[in-house]
Amino acid sequence: MDVYECLRSRRTVREFKPDPVSDETLAKILSAARWAPSSRNQQPWRLVVIRLAETLAQIGETARTGSFIARAPLAIALVMENADQPQMDGGRALQQMEIMAWAEGMGTCFVTLTEDERRRVSEILNIPETMELITVLPFGYRRDDFRGRGAPRLPMSDMVHVEAFGNPYGG
Amino acid sequence: MDVYECLRSRRTVREFKPDPVSDETLAKILSAARWAPSSRNQQPWRLVVIRLAETLAQIGETARTGSFIARAPLAIALVMENADQPQMDGGRALQQMEIMAWAEGMGTCFVTLTEDERRRVSEILNIPETMELITVLPFGYRRDDFRGRGAPRLPMSDMVHVEAFGNPYGG
Repeated sequence: MDVYECLRSRRTVREFKPDPVSDETLAKILSAARWAPSSRNQQPWRLVVIRLAETLAQIGETARTGSFIARAPLAIALVMENADQPQMDGGRALQQMEIMAWAEGMGTCFVTLTEDERRRVSEILNIPETMELITVLPFGYRRDDFRGRGAPRLPMSDMVHVEAFGNPYGG
Repeated sequence: MDVYECLRSRRTVREFKPDPVSDETLAKILSAARWAPSSRNQQPWRLVVIRLAETLAQIGETARTGSFIARAPLAIALVMENADQPQMDGGRALQQMEIMAWAEGMGTCFVTLTEDERRRVSEILNIPETMELITVLPFGYRRDDFRGRGAPRLPMSDMVHVEAFGNPYGG
């Protein structure tokens, strides 16, 4: 899929087909994260691939706003080890995974975990206490009836300024 | 450009052709940020487009590790307003801009600004004190002799675990 078309059409996906994700497609998504840039090339990402239904169900039960994780065929936990900028570098790798997945007919949804939920999910996944769990991203193929209209966006002129803050963009 | 090919080939770019960036191409990069997902669809990104050579030079002089900003034909300051997750949402929009730029034959480099540098750049760009400047991204076309070999990456088995932390991925 073309990059511009992918970015333009991407939507958040919370319902998935039950179809499994092949090892080849999984490798593409993992590579998208591995190829992301990071602060001082620390590559601080540690990823845990989850396909066991029991583990997916446990995480879905734990994450108050992410119950749909239980109904995904795949999830990837994003964990940071010794990162200067864990949220920034995490966000960059995560976005590359999301875009790669969309191009493959799949989708994901970011789930914000509370501190308590992060602790419990870290226990489920055996994540060392020295590491920081960012989130667990569910992945799966979009359903045939998927109609993501997309969240509304601010007009460009409310978001973009020219040369200095206060001169709205009119392009 | 194909998404997988774009993610696979992308490199960090610090030297740019002097060629200006057209309004049409700029609009694609800005749209890539605007279409990014954000926590609770807050869309907390405020972008300042900078093409004035004098401003680019001032910022390049201010950012100790980003002097090359002075030699870019374009830069975009990424500012967050009332964001629940400023670094995460900032990183997601930034990565979409980087990917879009790469697909257009361009490139960028993340510059980490110190607190003092952020304060000074915020003054140059007239950014309100209530807002949080994340970084200033320079953009430009890659030089004909660009040979980004790419920063080395950890093997996948050092980064990815299967089902629980401690079971290295062998795929």
